[in-house]
Amino acid sequence: MDFAFSARSLELQKEVERFLEEFIYPAEHVFEAQAAANRAAGTPFRTPEVLAGLKEEARSRGLWNLFLPSEASSRPEGDAAEGGAGLSVLDYAPIAELSGRSGAIAPEAMNCAAPDTGNMELLAMFASDEQRAQWLDPLLRGEIRSCFSMTEPAVASSDATNIALTITADGDSFVVDGRKWWSTGALRPECKVSIVMGVSDPEAAKYARHSMILVPLDTAGVTVERSTSVFGYDDGPHGGHGVVHFDNVRVPRENLLGPQGGGFMMAQARLGPGRIHHCMRALGVAERALELMCTRAQSRSTFGQPIAKHGMVQEWIAESRLAIEQARLLVLKTAWLIDTAGVRSARTEIAAIKVAAPRAASYVLDRAIQVHGAAGVSGDTPLAEAWAQLRTLHLADGPDEVHLRSVAREELRRHDDRS
Amino acid sequence: MDFAFSARSLELQKEVERFLEEFIYPAEHVFEAQAAANRAAGTPFRTPEVLAGLKEEARSRGLWNLFLPSEASSRPEGDAAEGGAGLSVLDYAPIAELSGRSGAIAPEAMNCAAPDTGNMELLAMFASDEQRAQWLDPLLRGEIRSCFSMTEPAVASSDATNIALTITADGDSFVVDGRKWWSTGALRPECKVSIVMGVSDPEAAKYARHSMILVPLDTAGVTVERSTSVFGYDDGPHGGHGVVHFDNVRVPRENLLGPQGGGFMMAQARLGPGRIHHCMRALGVAERALELMCTRAQSRSTFGQPIAKHGMVQEWIAESRLAIEQARLLVLKTAWLIDTAGVRSARTEIAAIKVAAPRAASYVLDRAIQVHGAAGVSGDTPLAEAWAQLRTLHLADGPDEVHLRSVAREELRRHDDRS
Amino acid sequence: MDFAFSARSLELQKEVERFLEEFIYPAEHVFEAQAAANRAAGTPFRTPEVLAGLKEEARSRGLWNLFLPSEASSRPEGDAAEGGAGLSVLDYAPIAELSGRSGAIAPEAMNCAAPDTGNMELLAMFASDEQRAQWLDPLLRGEIRSCFSMTEPAVASSDATNIALTITADGDSFVVDGRKWWSTGALRPECKVSIVMGVSDPEAAKYARHSMILVPLDTAGVTVERSTSVFGYDDGPHGGHGVVHFDNVRVPRENLLGPQGGGFMMAQARLGPGRIHHCMRALGVAERALELMCTRAQSRSTFGQPIAKHGMVQEWIAESRLAIEQARLLVLKTAWLIDTAGVRSARTEIAAIKVAAPRAASYVLDRAIQVHGAAGVSGDTPLAEAWAQLRTLHLADGPDEVHLRSVAREELRRHDDRS
Amino acid sequence: MDFAFSARSLELQKEVERFLEEFIYPAEHVFEAQAAANRAAGTPFRTPEVLAGLKEEARSRGLWNLFLPSEASSRPEGDAAEGGAGLSVLDYAPIAELSGRSGAIAPEAMNCAAPDTGNMELLAMFASDEQRAQWLDPLLRGEIRSCFSMTEPAVASSDATNIALTITADGDSFVVDGRKWWSTGALRPECKVSIVMGVSDPEAAKYARHSMILVPLDTAGVTVERSTSVFGYDDGPHGGHGVVHFDNVRVPRENLLGPQGGGFMMAQARLGPGRIHHCMRALGVAERALELMCTRAQSRSTFGQPIAKHGMVQEWIAESRLAIEQARLLVLKTAWLIDTAGVRSARTEIAAIKVAAPRAASYVLDRAIQVHGAAGVSGDTPLAEAWAQLRTLHLADGPDEVHLRSVAREELRRHDDRS
Repeated sequence: MDFAFSARSLELQKEVERFLEEFIYPAEHVFEAQAAANRAAGTPFRTPEVLAGLKEEARSRGLWNLFLPSEASSRPEGDAAEGGAGLSVLDYAPIAELSGRSGAIAPEAMNCAAPDTGNMELLAMFASDEQRAQWLDPLLRGEIRSCFSMTEPAVASSDATNIALTITADGDSFVVDGRKWWSTGALRPECKVSIVMGVSDPEAAKYARHSMILVPLDTAGVTVERSTSVFGYDDGPHGGHGVVHFDNVRVPRENLLGPQGGGFMMAQARLGPGRIHHCMRALGVAERALELMCTRAQSRSTFGQPIAKHGMVQEWIAESRLAIEQARLLVLKTAWLIDTAGVRSARTEIAAIKVAAPRAASYVLDRAIQVHGAAGVSGDTPLAEAWAQLRTLHLADGPDEVHLRSVAREELRRHDDRS
Repeated sequence: MDFAFSARSLELQKEVERFLEEFIYPAEHVFEAQAAANRAAGTPFRTPEVLAGLKEEARSRGLWNLFLPSEASSRPEGDAAEGGAGLSVLDYAPIAELSGRSGAIAPEAMNCAAPDTGNMELLAMFASDEQRAQWLDPLLRGEIRSCFSMTEPAVASSDATNIALTITADGDSFVVDGRKWWSTGALRPECKVSIVMGVSDPEAAKYARHSMILVPLDTAGVTVERSTSVFGYDDGPHGGHGVVHFDNVRVPRENLLGPQGGGFMMAQARLGPGRIHHCMRALGVAERALELMCTRAQSRSTFGQPIAKHGMVQEWIAESRLAIEQARLLVLKTAWLIDTAGVRSARTEIAAIKVAAPRAASYVLDRAIQVHGAAGVSGDTPLAEAWAQLRTLHLADGPDEVHLRSVAREELRRHDDRS
Repeated sequence: MDFAFSARSLELQKEVERFLEEFIYPAEHVFEAQAAANRAAGTPFRTPEVLAGLKEEARSRGLWNLFLPSEASSRPEGDAAEGGAGLSVLDYAPIAELSGRSGAIAPEAMNCAAPDTGNMELLAMFASDEQRAQWLDPLLRGEIRSCFSMTEPAVASSDATNIALTITADGDSFVVDGRKWWSTGALRPECKVSIVMGVSDPEAAKYARHSMILVPLDTAGVTVERSTSVFGYDDGPHGGHGVVHFDNVRVPRENLLGPQGGGFMMAQARLGPGRIHHCMRALGVAERALELMCTRAQSRSTFGQPIAKHGMVQEWIAESRLAIEQARLLVLKTAWLIDTAGVRSARTEIAAIKVAAPRAASYVLDRAIQVHGAAGVSGDTPLAEAWAQLRTLHLADGPDEVHLRSVAREELRRHDDRS
Repeated sequence: MDFAFSARSLELQKEVERFLEEFIYPAEHVFEAQAAANRAAGTPFRTPEVLAGLKEEARSRGLWNLFLPSEASSRPEGDAAEGGAGLSVLDYAPIAELSGRSGAIAPEAMNCAAPDTGNMELLAMFASDEQRAQWLDPLLRGEIRSCFSMTEPAVASSDATNIALTITADGDSFVVDGRKWWSTGALRPECKVSIVMGVSDPEAAKYARHSMILVPLDTAGVTVERSTSVFGYDDGPHGGHGVVHFDNVRVPRENLLGPQGGGFMMAQARLGPGRIHHCMRALGVAERALELMCTRAQSRSTFGQPIAKHGMVQEWIAESRLAIEQARLLVLKTAWLIDTAGVRSARTEIAAIKVAAPRAASYVLDRAIQVHGAAGVSGDTPLAEAWAQLRTLHLADGPDEVHLRSVAREELRRHDDRS
């Protein structure tokens, strides 16, 4: 077990910290204000304008596409920035954490925001040359955005085999038919394409029935019906969470991404590094919340002493530190396992951090809210919205319980092997 | 200990259930739609129109002002409905719970919504005849609404002695100067007056420094600056949560409510029955969430069986039932204590239910959300918004920790007496 | 819901309190010393001698067999003390709680100790006249003790249908064959008989296969092989927990208790009031532990102030009070339900308190231990042993999880009926 | 951060695993039986005889004194085994974990058992040549045992400045006067000396008042009054936990260990690596308990399926894995910090693992007990006794709360520095 970061990673971490200090943090209020103005203007899903400059700045500093493990562009002659940074999953992890400290802006400014990161990874691994040229390259350049359509409103998607949208071959087309939701980002104008998972081979074995297909959002029959909210937040600046109706949508056969029937395998492949990103960003949120908690606790007094002197508040601060530290180490170990042994070997850990990291972060956020009193639940601190985002992580990619179940089954299986 | 409800209470409970079934539940979607339309029209704090009819219906059925323990109107000749129902706190408790099942509509439809209930109680107890005629009567008739201005953004209000707004005698006026927030309802057009707590006697003993004063919201110098949100919710249909600036506001001396220096005593008096209402409504929310959890768990399947068959989900359902039952009994015991021994004797229990009931309800809501998956965090179920409202109850009227501290100190004191 | 205790119960509560103060508490150290001496003398399962006098005292004060709902003796001419006190389950509940404050002595001194109470109830309900004369009468007089043999070491007894000991008819005898454990009290000299549950009708329906039979412990083939410990405690003064081998034990057919195949029905009948007793005694333990916690917290100082001033300790004290209050109310409600609607109607509540009351008590004990520091885990306070006893309550009569499952299934069933 | 174990550590881990399999596990029942026989013979504090051979075996295999970072013997010509293995704290950590799997035997068999390890470390760091020859050498050879006398029954020792025993200079002697308890091992015949902490300089600064002194247990005035139990366990095979009365005990001035007034500094120095040992052994216990939990869950059935298929049991297994993994990583990080930056730099982490590792282990043990049902609380599995030992870790070296307080204060301090 060697969690040491490479010199390159350490250097990039410093660069990212500087970028946060100099550009991102000062832009947070601007971003908020622009989002509010867009909302007031009836265009809540428009990307706040400040982002464009931040993206340019990040790109010019080489803080661009750092999540991508390797050269991914279809154009070897392309701008260096378009390729990946060649960082291992472990090396990228602390950068993801840093970006999580300003989760609404930093990841996108660095072209490292979900769901595009996962989509770019999928495309880098499975796309044809044509698909790469058409979708991956503009994504790597940050010119367009994409969404991922997996969960469905009509079935319990926590068991992914329930997914019911159909992808039916018909001549040289596939017909996509069904309704998805939580297609994050689907409502922003820049979002041009969705990777859609559905049943292509209903008679095949349980885990070989599904495929992924690229559906441009301007295809006939695609309707983004509405956006779902998250605890009252529209997540407008990130394009909301689209409910997307695919009503007999016809796309060319070449739009199939990867092998037919390979949907589950690809979803798994997408999962590992993406999970690391999610979890580290969550811990970045938690670190910042802990800082806010300490600041507040030291600046307000009750019953004759600063809140920071009260035993229960000290308990929360200490427990927050314990929770973050432990969760982070588990995520880093998982990253190291992915790097050294592969996603498959790390699957139990990948399941474990799904539970551990959001749990740690949710705890810290909740206690930070409590220390802030009424301000904590309002929009006057970033805590409430961050908490709401974290709450979804206990459900996204499957509820915690499904992952605990996986960990338990693996433990029991290993135990069988041992005995 | 006798928690038996009177025949009148039992009868009213049935009436309220019928009212909910026939009028309130069917109106929920209408209310939501009108609120959305108001929001879209740029008048988010307008009261949805459906409420007016519901209020008339409730009043005509005698389901009006049930929270009030006794005749409270200043006009003995007044409409019977304007007086209280003469229910004991215990007798009203299950009615409060029922109203909590549709917490956005039912309490207000029955003229039993916070913060007006607490304000009406204060007025019924402490108002002069003129004050009663001017404010209490229209409140009892549901013609106007009021707000309560206690918490301040600049200090840790969990220690109420921190409250800093000043109420300064000047000739035959008082000058009110300071900034309050979480003046719930302040932004709705019907809200006409605030009961404001502030420092009137800065040199007096710690708990004799504060007074309450009636400030009409149209007085010169009063500005409702904005509304704070609760997570992403504006709580618009209930008039939001006002940040109110009182900038050298001058009101006649007669506007003082109750005795000068009596602010803390009155806040305590207001607290007891109001706490019962809050807690029972919270448990009403929880009961409805548990029903939704069961429905959902029985209607969706994962891994080959209904979610309701999964052990962890069963655990949540059972723990929810345990939590609700225990919390409700403690609230009822507290109500009974208030009725039979007075608020003062029940102060430890009043502190205890502050923690116990919202905790129970928050647990149930959180697990109901989890069972609903992604739908649970969205606006497609009432769960997320209800959870957000409940989250504020861990802070409103002082954070849980302050109340735990009170319970502990009382326990230690009683222990001293014993030994 | 009317939890008011009858005048008779209130009077008895005062009597029991006086008995505790004057006789029981002063005897605790004597009991401990005698138990230690017995252990040193190689007779750990001998009943400490002090108990005999306490029993006489209790009997002379009319604090005898109070658990029994009604006249139960077979001898109408018998000493009045031998019958029950005619208390309702609710009325007896606070007396059980009081006895739990000195759980090692008081229940037995008042002839209200498990497992004899449950056995006496079974006999009072199901025994023939001969059985009553032979076993119930001397039990009511406190002359002998009995044990209950249900759980088996070889199967998961949390699913009671797993019970495997056989009770086979053979001529005018039954042959009892199998091994039981946790036959509490089996090793004390006064223990004369066991009520044994086993399979009498292996071909019958699942819940009609088992019967109960009376087996005198001196019957040929009965061997009390050893006692199991509880966290290092031998529970010697109460006769330990016997592992009992029934090796082709032959008893007359008349020893069958109640109807053949009625084992489950009888186990259920035994369960309700006994559960109330267990739970209330647990809360009595908790109340006393909370007192000890307060005393200790006020008498020791760290970091410049009494432990009682530390926020975390105050939190524990407050949470202890909340836990006890809520659990007690649920137990009392359950008792009231049993009294007014019968055991069957109260079965969900009976399951719920199985979890709630020991959980509350275990929490209080654990925190009391923590406040006592190293003394808490030692034999220098009663806390550690009391905790250990409470820990078994999370398993005895089925693990908590089985009862949560029952509560959940009932909730889901009721929900089905409703919808 | 580099947690990679050296080749030597990895090799030793394999050796220890082999030693456990071949010698230790098979000896567990022998040890238990001999302990029981000793107890029955009235010599409960005698070391079970099987240990001697195991110690020889371990020593011959080079699995001896592995905890010691370096050559510590006073005799350079000494047996190589007597020196330390030269392992870093990180390298020794997994060996400590392995020894914890059979915590009653393996640590002592390898001469790596508390409290001797900490004492040997203290002696290796601070002892004079004479002290080393007299006490350290025979300890390193496993010929004698020692105890550590810090905690006192009369004060809240969780605040170590409360320690009150006096060490008073008088001519060329020191007079030691006071009462200690939890001097683990004091009652075994092999225990020859105690390191005693007390007040030597009552007028000095708060943390410069205490010294440590070597007191041979056969000095006049030393009385081991009795042993305290841990729950119901006497911990006899390890010499119990002595209550030691030092009644005007006179020892030569040369017995002072390290600098006068250096007690706190030395206690801190002793703490770091020892904490790692404790925590890793706790996790070794937890790993073995998790294995037992899995075995049991797979071998018993309830309600028609193996316990291992029940959702709640799977949850416990998964949560156990998460808890162990996270705690272990934090302990390893702490070990690495001690190795690379020193104990002082690692003090926050040393405080954090004090809470995290026992908490993780206690959770696993408690759930393992629950899965084992009644067997779990008895002596028929090692779980109950292991749980009891773990429970003391929440108090030993100061209660968890004191360490959480340290973590919080450090967090707040770091936060101050940052801002």
